[in-house]
Amino acid sequence: MFEPFWKEVGDDATVKISGWEKMSYTSSCDDDICWFLEPEFANEVARLHRIVNNAATDGRYIIVGVGSTQMIHATLHTLASIELRHPVNVVSAAPYYSMYPGIVDLMKSGLYHWAGDAAAFRGDDNFIELVCSPNNPDGTIRHAMLGKEAGKRVHDMAYYWPQYSPMRGPADHDIMLFTLSKATGHAGTRIGWALVKNKEVAREMAKFITLNTIGVSKDSQVRAATILKVISDGYEFPKPNGAPQFFHFGQHKLADRWRRLRRAVQVSGQFSLPRFSPEFCEFFKEYAETYPGFAWLRCEDQKINDCEDFFKRINVLTRSGKHFGVGQEYVRISMLDTDANFDVFIKRISSLD
Amino acid sequence: MFEPFWKEVGDDATVKISGWEKMSYTSSCDDDICWFLEPEFANEVARLHRIVNNAATDGRYIIVGVGSTQMIHATLHTLASIELRHPVNVVSAAPYYSMYPGIVDLMKSGLYHWAGDAAAFRGDDNFIELVCSPNNPDGTIRHAMLGKEAGKRVHDMAYYWPQYSPMRGPADHDIMLFTLSKATGHAGTRIGWALVKNKEVAREMAKFITLNTIGVSKDSQVRAATILKVISDGYEFPKPNGAPQFFHFGQHKLADRWRRLRRAVQVSGQFSLPRFSPEFCEFFKEYAETYPGFAWLRCEDQKINDCEDFFKRINVLTRSGKHFGVGQEYVRISMLDTDANFDVFIKRISSLD
Repeated sequence: MFEPFWKEVGDDATVKISGWEKMSYTSSCDDDICWFLEPEFANEVARLHRIVNNAATDGRYIIVGVGSTQMIHATLHTLASIELRHPVNVVSAAPYYSMYPGIVDLMKSGLYHWAGDAAAFRGDDNFIELVCSPNNPDGTIRHAMLGKEAGKRVHDMAYYWPQYSPMRGPADHDIMLFTLSKATGHAGTRIGWALVKNKEVAREMAKFITLNTIGVSKDSQVRAATILKVISDGYEFPKPNGAPQFFHFGQHKLADRWRRLRRAVQVSGQFSLPRFSPEFCEFFKEYAETYPGFAWLRCEDQKINDCEDFFKRINVLTRSGKHFGVGQEYVRISMLDTDANFDVFIKRISSLD
Repeated sequence: MFEPFWKEVGDDATVKISGWEKMSYTSSCDDDICWFLEPEFANEVARLHRIVNNAATDGRYIIVGVGSTQMIHATLHTLASIELRHPVNVVSAAPYYSMYPGIVDLMKSGLYHWAGDAAAFRGDDNFIELVCSPNNPDGTIRHAMLGKEAGKRVHDMAYYWPQYSPMRGPADHDIMLFTLSKATGHAGTRIGWALVKNKEVAREMAKFITLNTIGVSKDSQVRAATILKVISDGYEFPKPNGAPQFFHFGQHKLADRWRRLRRAVQVSGQFSLPRFSPEFCEFFKEYAETYPGFAWLRCEDQKINDCEDFFKRINVLTRSGKHFGVGQEYVRISMLDTDANFDVFIKRISSLD
């Protein structure tokens, strides 16, 4: 979806690496905690967070990983190893990101296991709550559901960027996860990062990544730094020709898609979508709407038992609510596909009435 | 160590990726097994194996991973999940690669656990043997130690390239692992691959990588393809100016380092090194020596109890034999460091007599 922006940016976002560069496992960073972290990447991460003001970075350790998926593995492994008793219960409030159960139980680890919906959790204080905010799939702002005194929390903040949601000031949790994929659209680069308060937790996370993949691609880190720099430069040094700025471009595009989707849904009368009130966005410095990266759609027609199946019959790919811990009257639909695919989707849903 | 070669190659080995390219999770490959595999990378892997003739690729599935470390995780997870009973015993003949125990037990998985030296294994047929050949740390050619009828084998062939060892024809095992790091020197790119005979095994390995890291960096795959192509082109279309060819360059460099090390060791009289007979190399088409990527050095002096500690006192970084499942009279020393560091090492070891 963000491809047209990057085409317009042109050469500034191009990365070029010679055959003899970045050959080593280690980085030029003198960081004794995350020995594979490229300093230019870490600098651009901190810089963009400062500009957007979506997460506190002062005094935080930055850990880089292969997407935020590896960061989730690293976080669970670390908290279970050094902070809690084995096996730890891992929970998240439904509807939760459909990959959480599979990620948590991938290794059938003796350290932790998936324990389902946080709202239904009846265990003691030996848990990790995954708090996804804005939430995948439904776009809501989430707070930890279970007591703050007990257990541990991991804040998955993949979608806490201005194109998706009004910025309510810098988040300040113990462990916050981000991913290039959702921030800039570069999913193929497989770069995620964590902002971590506690030094020992940061050190253990880096150790996990050492034994999982011996670090993270230098090429991807260099490319990610280049991409993040273009976005930050666009705001700190805006071009006199009025060149587009990334978050403005992204919000504008998502606003347009959501407008078209809400209209089609209203005309058909068979579905409902979440509603969000405008809130003051401290980045755009004005009241802004919420435009989640996914549409969390509910089939209101009582005759439709399986909403995913219903959409399959009109050739629209969705993911059933049952994968997110709720009923199959819900489906999740991506709002981040290419323009062409999104147009087809709107055409098909509009043909239903 | 291979950096001077890549400097000499120059622009042909440079990779350039625009901001709007390779943004997607998925590749342009129509492969339904490894959905994140870049076709140009897969083509160059198969091409180089054909030119070197070190591994059979016809009818094999190529799975790409974040270094061969992730490939080991993927392989163990797959074999334990679909072929064996839980928990599977994972073994390797000592001296074994010192990271195997940590990699195997990282997740404290209920699927498998580290069971030590294959030679000492007394369990039933429920095992996976990791066969590293040429072996890290000692450079020997290895065959599976445990019965071929029972259990499962994973062949870690990171060092089966002409610069390290005479090529004895194409290896033809069920699962063979390789890594760019040892093949070309690009450790920072974090690219490994597996050649897999069985379709279901290949499919499960790709599924593991999906849940571990949602695929593998496209940037790294594109760069790896560029690098591998330069090496293959150097042999298929040699330049008229007699430009260096990669495996010739690597072998020449390692031969020089091994000559200097053997001389220094001989002069000091306190250590011994493995001996290898020349063998016919089907790649160089002549008898060739073995030049392992590591020196597996034994302290022969009875007064030295801890060889690692002995070297530490002359500021030489080694890794004690105890991490490889043998005694601390052994140490492993890298032969792949930069020229400057290798020179310092030879100087220090020569100062001992």
